[in-house]
Amino acid sequence: MSTTQTMTPSSDALGTSAAQARSAVLEELILKDPGRFRILTGDRPTGRLHLGHYFGTLHNRVRLQNLGVELFVIIPDYQVLTDRDVADNLTEHVEELVLDYLAIGIDPARSTIFTHSAVPALNQLMLPFLSLVSVSELNRNPTVKDEIAHSRQSSVNGLMFTYPVHQAADILSCKANLVPVGQDQLPHLELTRTVARRFNDRYGNGTTVFPQPEALLSKAPLLLGTDGTKMSKSRGNAIALAADADETARLIRGAKTDAERHITYDPATRPEVSSLVLLAALCQNRPPQEVAEEIGPAGAAALKRTVTEAVNEYLAPIRARRAEYAQDRAHLRQTLREGNERTRAVADATLAEVRTAMNSHY
Amino acid sequence: MSTTQTMTPSSDALGTSAAQARSAVLEELILKDPGRFRILTGDRPTGRLHLGHYFGTLHNRVRLQNLGVELFVIIPDYQVLTDRDVADNLTEHVEELVLDYLAIGIDPARSTIFTHSAVPALNQLMLPFLSLVSVSELNRNPTVKDEIAHSRQSSVNGLMFTYPVHQAADILSCKANLVPVGQDQLPHLELTRTVARRFNDRYGNGTTVFPQPEALLSKAPLLLGTDGTKMSKSRGNAIALAADADETARLIRGAKTDAERHITYDPATRPEVSSLVLLAALCQNRPPQEVAEEIGPAGAAALKRTVTEAVNEYLAPIRARRAEYAQDRAHLRQTLREGNERTRAVADATLAEVRTAMNSHY
Repeated sequence: MSTTQTMTPSSDALGTSAAQARSAVLEELILKDPGRFRILTGDRPTGRLHLGHYFGTLHNRVRLQNLGVELFVIIPDYQVLTDRDVADNLTEHVEELVLDYLAIGIDPARSTIFTHSAVPALNQLMLPFLSLVSVSELNRNPTVKDEIAHSRQSSVNGLMFTYPVHQAADILSCKANLVPVGQDQLPHLELTRTVARRFNDRYGNGTTVFPQPEALLSKAPLLLGTDGTKMSKSRGNAIALAADADETARLIRGAKTDAERHITYDPATRPEVSSLVLLAALCQNRPPQEVAEEIGPAGAAALKRTVTEAVNEYLAPIRARRAEYAQDRAHLRQTLREGNERTRAVADATLAEVRTAMNSHY
Repeated sequence: MSTTQTMTPSSDALGTSAAQARSAVLEELILKDPGRFRILTGDRPTGRLHLGHYFGTLHNRVRLQNLGVELFVIIPDYQVLTDRDVADNLTEHVEELVLDYLAIGIDPARSTIFTHSAVPALNQLMLPFLSLVSVSELNRNPTVKDEIAHSRQSSVNGLMFTYPVHQAADILSCKANLVPVGQDQLPHLELTRTVARRFNDRYGNGTTVFPQPEALLSKAPLLLGTDGTKMSKSRGNAIALAADADETARLIRGAKTDAERHITYDPATRPEVSSLVLLAALCQNRPPQEVAEEIGPAGAAALKRTVTEAVNEYLAPIRARRAEYAQDRAHLRQTLREGNERTRAVADATLAEVRTAMNSHY
């Protein structure tokens, strides 16, 4: 698979189904020998995480951690440099993110949370990696397009343009061999794999300096925002993990539904109602059809009561932990410092290997 | 001045004459208060330096150092990553370069010699700087074209493409405010100045984090190789500083001249003979016309004897020092280590300022 641009629908489907099959195999391998795997994943420090993030990726991350996979969680602070609103409150954004991570159960004793800017060795990899990638490859990379869409900027700057190489440095500096992705992000990993392969070919002298990380596809449930569009913090339609019970109730009370009274689960024809049903179902860990049937003729108001209760109940322990961690900012910062230190040690070791391979120790 | 592409001959001439006028002013300021200036300059570690380098830039560097300007000499080892022959012998190439520097009189007690790869803070600046430059600016930058020409590669890779930003990081990490350039390199500094200006505007909060470095134009005498083409190590037509007297004599003996017996200095119509005359003149520190007149009817053989003698006499103390330094490799490495350490301290301080300005201390 090269890029989304050049993919026909059939090769896309083929790529996805191959990735799905491989992910199933990977899940089995994880169960058998979780210690073989190291994951890199992370979130932009643009504010508090919400339920879309949670059921989309965070939950899965904690699951993998608890299975025994080694987890590195990067806070890519360099990616928000160009976003003035975010950059001006970066410290706060980073700390909110760490709070969310701790609250959902990412355990700093087993997993490593770090900020990109605290790991200099990471950027040292940029130069050899940039040399292994052509400008035309960068021009047609889907990650670049995604980055531009995320950045709220019109013209492409050098940081966005080289983003896939930064991503490769993020992943390969800690030699992650597994990257959890949603279906639309499948092509994003390709350039990292290419860089790993080319580095090994060019400098490895027969050895594998870098693993070619594999995509672990996870089914992200389609949760819509309370206005029926994509859930997004900037749209004010998302329930933050950190929101309190009242704010949650208010948001759900105002959620868009439809004109049909009888509640059913039918994402294709009734997206807004079905998204609410799904949310309750995810929180209660049961099939959405069952939730819908139970409410049935009681209508939207009953549905909203059920969802509110389910969400608040599900998030209660997470929010309690979050509030507790928030009390002790010094400890929070210490957690981040330790994660940064651990990552620095790993990335420094990788860089030392790279220098030996490249014959640039002097 | 924007780029060489868009410049008409007249604006080129205008830009050059403005730069010449400014350089004259700068030279006066240097005489008055050399401590105000910090220079960044350097050479690719692609092998031993030759007389073209020496009279082109090295000699001027030592002059400026001796006037009291602070000199940072970068060995940009990242630039040769893609050049397989060079990269495979990088350690040797770097050490040869340091030997040349010490031999010509760069004094590690006053000046700082360092390798790019040893200064992690430098690459940390790459990310904010990349965000301040658009892809279209990179596309039309003359430095990129030059980089491609130097790299002996056909397709443009990401490292070459981002080269002007690396250059900005090199210069600005140690806050150099002066960069000695030849006329053809005048536009190369523009992007560094742009990055400095944009960073100050965007993050400076009224203060000047980075100086906008100025170009110090120096008249590089046009020395041709012994075959009458551009002097270049790879063409085997250059006299290395480290060559011995016999090799020097042999190279000059085989130098191309012309059919006219009477020796004159006339670069426009007799480039090969005039280049030889100029070389002797530079070594003897007198006007080339005088050298030519003195030889006159004695012809090319006499000219070559004069040149050989002048070069060998001029280089004798340099070669003696070089041989001495070459005896003690441990000391050589120590010199480089100290230079690297000094540059790291300077670049770390710059990075700390950058982080404060960008509000990314946590």
